[in-house]
Amino acid sequence: RIKASGLKLRFCTNETQVTREKFVKKLQGLGFDISVDEVTAPAPAACRVLKERNLRPHLLVHDDVVPEFAEIDKANPNCVVVGDAADNFSYANLNEAFRVLIELENPVLISLGRGRYYKETDGLKLDVGAYMKALEYACDIQAEVVGKPAKMFFESALAEVGVQPQQAIMIGDDIVNDVGGAQQCGMRALQVRTGKYR
Amino acid sequence: RIKASGLKLRFCTNETQVTREKFVKKLQGLGFDISVDEVTAPAPAACRVLKERNLRPHLLVHDDVVPEFAEIDKANPNCVVVGDAADNFSYANLNEAFRVLIELENPVLISLGRGRYYKETDGLKLDVGAYMKALEYACDIQAEVVGKPAKMFFESALAEVGVQPQQAIMIGDDIVNDVGGAQQCGMRALQVRTGKYR
Repeated sequence: RIKASGLKLRFCTNETQVTREKFVKKLQGLGFDISVDEVTAPAPAACRVLKERNLRPHLLVHDDVVPEFAEIDKANPNCVVVGDAADNFSYANLNEAFRVLIELENPVLISLGRGRYYKETDGLKLDVGAYMKALEYACDIQAEVVGKPAKMFFESALAEVGVQPQQAIMIGDDIVNDVGGAQQCGMRALQVRTGKYR
Repeated sequence: RIKASGLKLRFCTNETQVTREKFVKKLQGLGFDISVDEVTAPAPAACRVLKERNLRPHLLVHDDVVPEFAEIDKANPNCVVVGDAADNFSYANLNEAFRVLIELENPVLISLGRGRYYKETDGLKLDVGAYMKALEYACDIQAEVVGKPAKMFFESALAEVGVQPQQAIMIGDDIVNDVGGAQQCGMRALQVRTGKYR
């Protein structure tokens, strides 16, 4: 209906466990008319930041999202990108990411979100935010968060569509990540009482 | 020399990777005249807290320190004790500790220290403080820290010796954990320029 009306549409997701390709396939399977180009997600947003600032990341992310970083130079890293790495959040991998950071003169930590935890079929899991905090504390630094509700993330989406904040409306089920984030960016926002709304 | 003078002596350590027995054996091997009764360490300090408050811990600690909690009831846990668990800091174990906490009405997290990192022969490792921060953030709580520089830890040591803070002097190589912690507790403190002093 939104598409038929001629309005520009953009899907903003904090999904960081898969590439946009897989994410879109899942939504298509659910009947959504959506393509990869219409999706704003933390990993590609991080890639833009990395390119702009000549950052070469050490990745601590989920295996399935690694392809999003295919075109990024990762040799001799000068920053760490942390996502919801799930099983990759091993003691060894966390120590490795920490060592990369602590040995940098200006440690840069980019986090693909700040979620506390989420639910899977086998129970609650710690989300990327918890591991971000662990690395922040160990290195005495502040991470830069890409993903909702970060202002930069919404600005990215707006730039891709080519509209001003006041011309756009954000629709989402999360009062903090969707509605709050968009409003802080100067957009209007609408909360739907579906999905994870309680 | 201190012992010969008749002064009361107490060894305060933040060691949480071994039992006091092993710790004392190591020091005896280095020529120190020391017994288990003379050591104040985070794990036994935590045990006192657990008993006083009828807390039954879920343990996320190093295998080698588990024996310190032998006499503590651990069935149906109503708190989490986190120490420097090293290899036990797996994704699965962290999720498990998190789930215990998040399901409690009043989540209690007791941390056997707040260290950021430490050095081992094979490189730098994240210390218990980083994992404490991860759990704090995920559950939106504040951990209670047992171990230097926590006031409670020094008070424990003083009580065991049976003296007032102003009658005691703390000698250590760490300006924050040893000297600062003791001073905050009303003790005088002396920094030695050995050990990790730089």
